[in-house]
Amino acid sequence: MKAAIFRGKGTIDVGERPDPEIQEASDAVVRVVRGCVCGSDLWYYRGINPHKVGSIGHEYIGVVESIGSEVTGLAVGDFVIAPFTFNDGTCPACRAGFPSNCMHGGAFGNGVTDGGQGEKVRAPFADATLVKVPQPPEGRFTDEQLASFTALSDVACTGYHAAVSAGVQPGDTVAVVGDGAVGLSAVLAARKLGATRVIALSRNPARQAVAVEFGATDIVEKRGADAIETVLRLTDGAGVDAALECVGTDESIETCAGITRAGGMIGAVGVPLYETFQYQTLFWKNVGIRGGVAPARRYIPELLDDVLAGRINPGLVFDFTTDLDHVAEAYAAMDERRAIKSLLSIGQP
Amino acid sequence: MKAAIFRGKGTIDVGERPDPEIQEASDAVVRVVRGCVCGSDLWYYRGINPHKVGSIGHEYIGVVESIGSEVTGLAVGDFVIAPFTFNDGTCPACRAGFPSNCMHGGAFGNGVTDGGQGEKVRAPFADATLVKVPQPPEGRFTDEQLASFTALSDVACTGYHAAVSAGVQPGDTVAVVGDGAVGLSAVLAARKLGATRVIALSRNPARQAVAVEFGATDIVEKRGADAIETVLRLTDGAGVDAALECVGTDESIETCAGITRAGGMIGAVGVPLYETFQYQTLFWKNVGIRGGVAPARRYIPELLDDVLAGRINPGLVFDFTTDLDHVAEAYAAMDERRAIKSLLSIGQP
Repeated sequence: MKAAIFRGKGTIDVGERPDPEIQEASDAVVRVVRGCVCGSDLWYYRGINPHKVGSIGHEYIGVVESIGSEVTGLAVGDFVIAPFTFNDGTCPACRAGFPSNCMHGGAFGNGVTDGGQGEKVRAPFADATLVKVPQPPEGRFTDEQLASFTALSDVACTGYHAAVSAGVQPGDTVAVVGDGAVGLSAVLAARKLGATRVIALSRNPARQAVAVEFGATDIVEKRGADAIETVLRLTDGAGVDAALECVGTDESIETCAGITRAGGMIGAVGVPLYETFQYQTLFWKNVGIRGGVAPARRYIPELLDDVLAGRINPGLVFDFTTDLDHVAEAYAAMDERRAIKSLLSIGQP
Repeated sequence: MKAAIFRGKGTIDVGERPDPEIQEASDAVVRVVRGCVCGSDLWYYRGINPHKVGSIGHEYIGVVESIGSEVTGLAVGDFVIAPFTFNDGTCPACRAGFPSNCMHGGAFGNGVTDGGQGEKVRAPFADATLVKVPQPPEGRFTDEQLASFTALSDVACTGYHAAVSAGVQPGDTVAVVGDGAVGLSAVLAARKLGATRVIALSRNPARQAVAVEFGATDIVEKRGADAIETVLRLTDGAGVDAALECVGTDESIETCAGITRAGGMIGAVGVPLYETFQYQTLFWKNVGIRGGVAPARRYIPELLDDVLAGRINPGLVFDFTTDLDHVAEAYAAMDERRAIKSLLSIGQP
């Protein structure tokens, strides 16, 4: 099969991989319809985080091509969304609602399985991992729906995890730090949970436009101490009920600590580049921090209902689409910040 | 009036202070019935944290002796519990339920007002700060009740804050790190919130006994890596739903991080001696941390109902009682770990 191949820092191209096969009775093989490039893929591409040479990509949607003998909840031909991690559904972490911490699970596309930026993927624990999408009444999904399904594979759930982790309540004032696809998804999530005011920190007009489309009520074009001062002024000096941390740098976590009100929460989903931070700042303000790798498998069914009902359109984060042959361009567009997030059209639904 | 006087590291004695007077129309002056010594007072005593020379103590209960012209909710003769911080009740932090972060508030007994280890205290914002205790049907409170009221001034609320901040739910398994008066109070709090299993980390028989009295189901006599291994073994390798951090050292926070299950919470009330900690450990496990200076004023009415109904007996943390003349002995008993917490019998109820 054809698949994107990561060759090392700065180099991604298209090559051949053996077709994945059923290895365990609980496996399924999925023929990929859409894949995409994640902000964390860029970290591999830029050489910041290590990644095995070979198949790459952890976000995909597609059609079940074959199933192992123990798979009972899926049939060949089913349309599915894969969360970016696979999980057994039975371990204590899964039972507690945190399948992304499954004791026997893992992430797609970094050596354990083929990645989502390719024509096919083996999905372990298929019943527990994959989410079946009901067939559309009209017989086919729109491109807009396919983009939104792909967003549910990771970024929409990760943004939602920030808002859920921060305990966003109806009527809250929320600030989102980070205007990447996850940050924008966090704006959408905060509104879904009932926040009446959502302050998006962004200096990029294209991202600001998506933030407003997703329900941001205020845009703050500042960073660091200036951003803190501005958000405090917007909230009569008190700070926001929840700050959603969607970057993972020292500056972004400090900004969150500075703008959250006494007793408020930080929902943190930006993969931390910082090792430590000044917890004392949070302690003395009674500010909590919660988050991590999003339990996407738990969130997908609920968000899928919203997408199918037309209540949310998380696929708007994709502002660049190409095919698998042009995967290098998909990475370059994001690396050069010409695109918020790149969608890969890989197969027919 | 007579009051304990902090003279600097290691020296506390009894001296004379001017009687406090009404300074603002919202003040009350309280004649102290019981005071006590806090773990944080020991830090001043040991020279770890700075404290002004002079009046000391932030926990007290007593009888209203005089009120300012704007005080409407209290009358002379009312029996009251003072939370360890005073608050205006109207600022954004107070309205959000975090009176200990009041923008115009402060702590008793470190220069702003006289301390609770003395015969009288001026209480600012008396209506918002002090909690009135209903007169007992029999005309007088028992010594046991007075001890429990005094515990509500700080430690019972601080332990409760750990459990509330961690979101302890009925059926949870909870571990408490720290066997001081706050840690023991956290055991009581976890049970009050419905935890069915409470693992107390303690190597001290007297403290273990109080922990069991407060509802601990398991005692772990280990520290550090051994404690983590033991708690994980007790929870089938998964870890606890919530860890209550009641110490504030690098070791205690690392222990909490190590024993909390994926997606669990740390409730942190130990005043952090650590500046920073390894947040990455929490992030990758989806473990959150929340806590800080307890909003005692918010919790006292609820816990007072429990005390008056005989459902809880938080005053059991006091295992040493003396009078104001022997305040030096009250400190020494705690400093030498002969006592969990020292109660000061200062006046008649």
